[in-house]
Amino acid sequence: MKAWIFAVGSELLTPFRVDTNSLAITERLNAIGCDVRFKAVVGDDVEDLRVLFERGIGEVDLIVCTGGLGPTEDDITRDALGRALNLELDLDERILGSIRARFERRGLVMQEINRRQAMVPRGAMVLENSRGTAPGLWLEREGTGILLLPGPPREMQPMLERIIDERLKARAGGRGLFRRVLRITGRPESDVDAVAQPVYAKWTSAPVPIATTILAKMGQIELHLTADAAGEEEAAAALESAVGELVDVLGPSVYSVDGRGLEEVIGDLLRERQLTIAVAESCSGGLLSSRITDVPGSSAYFDRGLVCYSNLAKIEWLGVAEALIAAHGAVSEPVAAAMADGVRERSTTSVGIGITGIAGPGGGTPEKPVGTVAIAVVTPEHRSVRTFLFLGGRDMVKFQATQAAMNMLRLLLADGPPVHRD
Amino acid sequence: MKAWIFAVGSELLTPFRVDTNSLAITERLNAIGCDVRFKAVVGDDVEDLRVLFERGIGEVDLIVCTGGLGPTEDDITRDALGRALNLELDLDERILGSIRARFERRGLVMQEINRRQAMVPRGAMVLENSRGTAPGLWLEREGTGILLLPGPPREMQPMLERIIDERLKARAGGRGLFRRVLRITGRPESDVDAVAQPVYAKWTSAPVPIATTILAKMGQIELHLTADAAGEEEAAAALESAVGELVDVLGPSVYSVDGRGLEEVIGDLLRERQLTIAVAESCSGGLLSSRITDVPGSSAYFDRGLVCYSNLAKIEWLGVAEALIAAHGAVSEPVAAAMADGVRERSTTSVGIGITGIAGPGGGTPEKPVGTVAIAVVTPEHRSVRTFLFLGGRDMVKFQATQAAMNMLRLLLADGPPVHRD
Repeated sequence: MKAWIFAVGSELLTPFRVDTNSLAITERLNAIGCDVRFKAVVGDDVEDLRVLFERGIGEVDLIVCTGGLGPTEDDITRDALGRALNLELDLDERILGSIRARFERRGLVMQEINRRQAMVPRGAMVLENSRGTAPGLWLEREGTGILLLPGPPREMQPMLERIIDERLKARAGGRGLFRRVLRITGRPESDVDAVAQPVYAKWTSAPVPIATTILAKMGQIELHLTADAAGEEEAAAALESAVGELVDVLGPSVYSVDGRGLEEVIGDLLRERQLTIAVAESCSGGLLSSRITDVPGSSAYFDRGLVCYSNLAKIEWLGVAEALIAAHGAVSEPVAAAMADGVRERSTTSVGIGITGIAGPGGGTPEKPVGTVAIAVVTPEHRSVRTFLFLGGRDMVKFQATQAAMNMLRLLLADGPPVHRD
Repeated sequence: MKAWIFAVGSELLTPFRVDTNSLAITERLNAIGCDVRFKAVVGDDVEDLRVLFERGIGEVDLIVCTGGLGPTEDDITRDALGRALNLELDLDERILGSIRARFERRGLVMQEINRRQAMVPRGAMVLENSRGTAPGLWLEREGTGILLLPGPPREMQPMLERIIDERLKARAGGRGLFRRVLRITGRPESDVDAVAQPVYAKWTSAPVPIATTILAKMGQIELHLTADAAGEEEAAAALESAVGELVDVLGPSVYSVDGRGLEEVIGDLLRERQLTIAVAESCSGGLLSSRITDVPGSSAYFDRGLVCYSNLAKIEWLGVAEALIAAHGAVSEPVAAAMADGVRERSTTSVGIGITGIAGPGGGTPEKPVGTVAIAVVTPEHRSVRTFLFLGGRDMVKFQATQAAMNMLRLLLADGPPVHRD
């Protein structure tokens, strides 16, 4: 089954807004084996949208159109579809009544302009909007299912689910695309691909074909595995075995095979081992603390963090010796280690992390250019101290430093199999 | 002048990647008075793209197509344009030479597959790629300028600038769209719109028309003003006066009229007044420190930050009295104030901030539900202590807490005009 997605709204043709609805729609359609082949964005121009509808109807199995269903003159989706199909729009009294009731419940009088939202192309099925005023619409013509959805994601989603259940699942014939994501850090993309490609290349012609995409993101690489299978069980088995093969060749650089972020992975490791953690950051400026505490329930293991930008803060609050800073410089492995030890001892946690570096754009020297970061992780049994050179702007250096610190902790703590599988 | 933008690549039809190139292209085209009327995304299918080219050529002034210019079978943009215009592709020896030289400079032998990138539709102008191997192409047919650009933003941008300078500026006839952005925090969108709308509504029919868009983002509201003017000077004058009118009615809730973020605004205020700052965070988990230190040069005023998740950290490191926590609870204005005072005194900075709250999803009570955050800002002359109730998930509560804290600081420090204008 093949689908096209249209997004309607002049704001989507400015430099400020991008159509993200189509991503969520694509994910749901893919899961029932429906492929998205084309996406288009048009402004609030009824003729532009009419032309698009005319091209798609009879040509593709499904058209999903979001936006342009509101009450104002700018909301042109109903009219455009009416014109494309030569259909009259009728006032639907039931919709009008429920829009009016919605206003009355909030003590408001419905403005007449809202009548537009109750106009329905003749023969269309109305999809009630439990979270807003604009209803959705469903119509079939010339073998094409046409789904009109409101723009706001929370209003759109229940209608999409309903049509998937009531109409699309049966058409799609049970096959679907199912996904798993492997997350990798501490290894360059070219290296990951060189190792992984010979493994995943052969899956495209397997009985349950699996397509693999490599996505390089800041501080990590993702391998997206998509199985084309007759059902969830078949897909899960094929994906589980594929994931296992990749973990075997990629080793401990794979930190997650179940969608968890690195902060969740280390959170789970700390919780399982009943450890607590305190961190001392310089160049990462609090981002490590913030990422660790992004995880709900992190107060169970995160005790405190110190952002010590000034040398005085390092000396006073962490007990880093002034002579150590003088001898090695604030950005050095000995100072990172003293920060990790200091924060751990003073907070009496089990784990301490110290990060010191040069985030830029200023402050670099020939010996220690911008992007130089020393990181120390100390636990009751182990210590790990390393120096990195990260590329990119200030925000990228900060992020990569936190990524590297959490990964060092993960590798120190992982004494069982390299990756926690679900 | 009207433009269409096409993005080519099957990855843009998955749930993982959205076409963001078109935003940067739209911004540059708008600046020379060129309107984007339609955007489309197609996969690596030569026929799909051929149909799009055929629809646009002769119909629109400009087509900008990104992606699909690489060396592999999947890179179908050259072929699609060739088919649409019935043009042969010729091998361009100069391009081939420069691709080969690029490989040789890196000590590599060019793979034969790269010859594809040297194929040029007959009559097209070649746009050299200084940052990669795939050249861009420019062609004019039936009144339509056709610009083919590689997908990676850093490769694409110089070619776009070149064509704007050499071809498009003259066509566009000098008129352009020019923008200013006002940023507002601490006020709901409906309230901002109720106050601002009567002011900006009349500008659409002014001699230099200005269109205004309101965008609600997490923790702030933006007003985007777009002037349609004959030149930069005319636009700047009209926008300056418009910005002034909005600042007059919106008052000090406007924190920036020059594109600066809130962290930059408070950074500039601290630097101008030669003040230093230390912060103590609980529920925001280090995000305030991280945002303040996102600003290059923030080490000039940011001394240190403490993330004290545990009560013990608040008592030991900040000197918050245990009895105070017992009497009022950790999430309370007295504790926030004691945290601000404690971090300020112990770091001997001029400004101290204390944040304590419930980020969720757990930890809420009927009296103090999730989203309750107490914030204190203390300076040599002033103190400000407030309690907020923020809506949304954990990340949204964290962000809004940092936004509110910086805004309280801004309002305390601003003794001159409410907004620093450039």
